[in-house]
Amino acid sequence: MTQRWDHLLINATLATFAGDAPYGLIERGAIAMHEGHIAWVGAQDDLPGDALALASHVEDLGGAVVTPGLIDCHTHLVFGGNRAHEFDLRLNGASYEDIARAGGGIVSTVKATREASEDELFVQALPRAHALLADGVTALEIKSGYGLDKETERRMLRVARRIGNALGITVRTSFLGLHALPPEYRENRTAYVSLVCDEMLPALAAEGLVDAVDAFCENIGFTPEETRRVFDRATELGLPVKLHAEQLSDLDGAALVARYRGLSADHLEYLSDSGIRAMAAAGTVAVLLPGAFYALRETELPPIAGLREHGVAMAIATDCNPGTSPLLSLRLAAGMACTLFRLTPEEALRGVTVHAARALGLSDRGTLQAGQRADLDVWNVKQPAELCYWIGGQVLRNVFIGGHSQAEVRP
Amino acid sequence: MTQRWDHLLINATLATFAGDAPYGLIERGAIAMHEGHIAWVGAQDDLPGDALALASHVEDLGGAVVTPGLIDCHTHLVFGGNRAHEFDLRLNGASYEDIARAGGGIVSTVKATREASEDELFVQALPRAHALLADGVTALEIKSGYGLDKETERRMLRVARRIGNALGITVRTSFLGLHALPPEYRENRTAYVSLVCDEMLPALAAEGLVDAVDAFCENIGFTPEETRRVFDRATELGLPVKLHAEQLSDLDGAALVARYRGLSADHLEYLSDSGIRAMAAAGTVAVLLPGAFYALRETELPPIAGLREHGVAMAIATDCNPGTSPLLSLRLAAGMACTLFRLTPEEALRGVTVHAARALGLSDRGTLQAGQRADLDVWNVKQPAELCYWIGGQVLRNVFIGGHSQAEVRP
Ligand SMILES: [Zn+2]
Ligand SMILES: [Zn+2]
Repeated sequence: MTQRWDHLLINATLATFAGDAPYGLIERGAIAMHEGHIAWVGAQDDLPGDALALASHVEDLGGAVVTPGLIDCHTHLVFGGNRAHEFDLRLNGASYEDIARAGGGIVSTVKATREASEDELFVQALPRAHALLADGVTALEIKSGYGLDKETERRMLRVARRIGNALGITVRTSFLGLHALPPEYRENRTAYVSLVCDEMLPALAAEGLVDAVDAFCENIGFTPEETRRVFDRATELGLPVKLHAEQLSDLDGAALVARYRGLSADHLEYLSDSGIRAMAAAGTVAVLLPGAFYALRETELPPIAGLREHGVAMAIATDCNPGTSPLLSLRLAAGMACTLFRLTPEEALRGVTVHAARALGLSDRGTLQAGQRADLDVWNVKQPAELCYWIGGQVLRNVFIGGHSQAEVRP
Repeated sequence: MTQRWDHLLINATLATFAGDAPYGLIERGAIAMHEGHIAWVGAQDDLPGDALALASHVEDLGGAVVTPGLIDCHTHLVFGGNRAHEFDLRLNGASYEDIARAGGGIVSTVKATREASEDELFVQALPRAHALLADGVTALEIKSGYGLDKETERRMLRVARRIGNALGITVRTSFLGLHALPPEYRENRTAYVSLVCDEMLPALAAEGLVDAVDAFCENIGFTPEETRRVFDRATELGLPVKLHAEQLSDLDGAALVARYRGLSADHLEYLSDSGIRAMAAAGTVAVLLPGAFYALRETELPPIAGLREHGVAMAIATDCNPGTSPLLSLRLAAGMACTLFRLTPEEALRGVTVHAARALGLSDRGTLQAGQRADLDVWNVKQPAELCYWIGGQVLRNVFIGGHSQAEVRP
């Protein structure tokens, strides 16, 4: 062996999510990191003979599970205020109408977000990102969509970038101008769609604030035709697309995003068989969001069997947002995917690692393989399934980000 | 003011759960602690004029919510092994029968618990208790019931006591000999019930290991007649009783435990109207366990409307156990009580404070009132409802136990 290793973990239970073994499991495994990347992965007995001597740090994990750093591929993490009061009102018997009349719902989040300065938005969002990190998230997506005007959308995306810098984690931004129709355009939706497509998106993309383009395609959101307009503009700008599709009804959104070879179609409770086939053909990832399903007490399950049958990759995300999924743990989302959607723990964990990476267009992470970024989690458990089994609790032992141990990831 | 105060918290949003205001809320409140107890609670403007000068420590909370320390009144926290593998098998299509044939189910936990030494049980259980504490629990109940022989039941209860000492939190033990019929008594249930009532319970009570007596009264557990036997013996020994009742069917267990003026009847999905009336008359607390409801995907809700109507106090607990509720956050249980059972956030929070205290027979805590133990939680939120609204995440800022600030409660 000619090259030293920065860090060598031995006696690990490696859930590599590479290869065909369940979890890509390597028991009594070893993993070496060097200069930010994974340098070697395998059975400890296969380590080069001089490995222990040449690694700068060697750590015996005593059988602890190691996974790729978790990846949260769908969040609305940046927003002003919260909707706990609305949650309280609703449980005290207020109807959605009552709440809308009282200025609640997404409109209240748009208002609070517009009123917040960039620093205020940052200070409010940072602890949420920190909570995700403290449960193992090393990369996450953050959407705009509560500004619905150029300045506030910019502010949200800038805050998303700042969060990545502040925590040293990877943040991928999605521009979600077509999230809701802002109140001031209630009588003029075409003008709003034009504003989004012709002004906001090109300007924000030119500033380097947009990694992907998303829309909310739904009867209560935007039509497929409106969605196409923003996707066409994204394509012109060379940006990948993704879509909130088939959450409440089937508008053939999944097939639409597949036609653009989109990264992902998300939610999918009402996904049809033809939608599944279109996604399979295009390689579009199915992002499942059990937190919203749980919080809204939905009963329509996404078509898991069909997705499995056609080999559509399934990812799991928190959908962290103030209205329908105030969920601050991706590990809990994976557990909900098992309990509520009947995914196997292996599927759920692939859904927050390798498939989530694919949903973000990231090919340098999501598995434990030589050459990948050294983003990885060490857990206080011996079996990967425990990550889905324990509900809540403090299961994370340590996180490596780009090969650096995060001595203390908790606030 | 003649007496100094050890600690004074000002600018707090106090959820006292005393009085009739929602949450017993005092905005811009102050709370003083002295020698382990709450010395003063009220609006900051009503503080004695020299209060700030005479308190040894003054802390401005910037509007943060303060609640009584949370109380988890129903856990099976001490056990050997875990059942993550069984969870994995089941999600991969194994039936309950397959799992039973493979030695799974409660029998596997009994086996692992019997095989574990006292130190091993302690080392396995401590992180679970720590996880509860790290989400605000300052007192919890721990049941025996995975030993089902005198030595192992003793070991479990000793470990429960050790956990309380190690973490400096209050632990109340419940003897649950009638949890399941041990394999070696499969053909001789009467002999097992006699062993529990005539040997195990008196011996363990004599050692001071038993604070209350519980049983699992269910078609797949023990009959009402068998339950009566152990309750009669508990009564002779001067120990209060409680009961796992009406989880899967209605055996009139709630009325039974009410006849003994029991502390609580727990689970209660199939509770009848007459059971509710009996509980109301006896002052028996209804302990609701949404974690098991969630994990088992139950659909029968406890009769919340009836419990409300008859003024039965409702408590919420984790039911932390390896089979049906591997839940390590009481705050998440409170959130589940809102989302799944439609309790209001105030009801859910009373359920993990004042009503949980009552379910354990503790009258010195559960509210923020002068004279109560100074067990209290400071949260990184401004409204009490947020404690139920945020799903997962790190919301706890600090804990005081007996007036002592826990600088670092995380592992
Ligand atoms: Zn979303
Ligand atoms: Zn129980």
